[in-house]
Amino acid sequence: MNETASLLFANEAFYLAFNNRDLAAMDAVWAERRDVTCIPPGWDVLSGREEVMESWRGILGGANSPAITCRKARGAVLGGLGMVLCYEQMGQNLLVATNLFAKEGAAWKMVHHQAGPCHITPAQLGEEPEAPPVQ
Amino acid sequence: MNETASLLFANEAFYLAFNNRDLAAMDAVWAERRDVTCIPPGWDVLSGREEVMESWRGILGGANSPAITCRKARGAVLGGLGMVLCYEQMGQNLLVATNLFAKEGAAWKMVHHQAGPCHITPAQLGEEPEAPPVQ
Repeated sequence: MNETASLLFANEAFYLAFNNRDLAAMDAVWAERRDVTCIPPGWDVLSGREEVMESWRGILGGANSPAITCRKARGAVLGGLGMVLCYEQMGQNLLVATNLFAKEGAAWKMVHHQAGPCHITPAQLGEEPEAPPVQ
Repeated sequence: MNETASLLFANEAFYLAFNNRDLAAMDAVWAERRDVTCIPPGWDVLSGREEVMESWRGILGGANSPAITCRKARGAVLGGLGMVLCYEQMGQNLLVATNLFAKEGAAWKMVHHQAGPCHITPAQLGEEPEAPPVQ
């Protein structure tokens, strides 16, 4: 798998953990050896693993935690960091996210996430691009 | 100046260009040799220098373009990239931003910006930390 494909795979793991309300999987998504930060929609900056995971505990444990679909993800490796920009569809609502990853060993681990509201509708996003072949 | 100080300086140049409605200065803030992306508050992903600068032309040329103060900026250098998280105060409204920079020669240049709404008030941010000594 090339670097961009493995970066998008790590991004998918984040949304899979989110959808499965799987706190252990979410914990594994986030970096262990770097500072991590998270800006949930409408929220302020959460800093450090403890504060970030406490937030996920609340979100994933919530009875009304919505199903989320990652759409139109695009990944780029910049320096030693990986950046994924994508949309997050929840029903007819759409958010837009910046997800940053750093390498820990062979794996991309999340170091920062910001999501915020987006003015367009899920329908306006159009079709997903065809997935590139795995190399 | 150390790397984090020069990163915060580049971040300040972004907000100075914004406040001065200075399109040429804003153009100089953004990277020339890398892909750039921008997610204005409530907006979708703008891609490439042309689309990003067209957006700034609209924002900076708007009669009601608000004065903006960057608050509580914190910078970190990660894998060759610089990340600044900060709040953007406009009157009594507060946004929160992720700003990414890459080195072009000796200068940090913006490669990505996302800003979105924040639930706290400017007063709740508290005092600014004392600026570290320039080294």
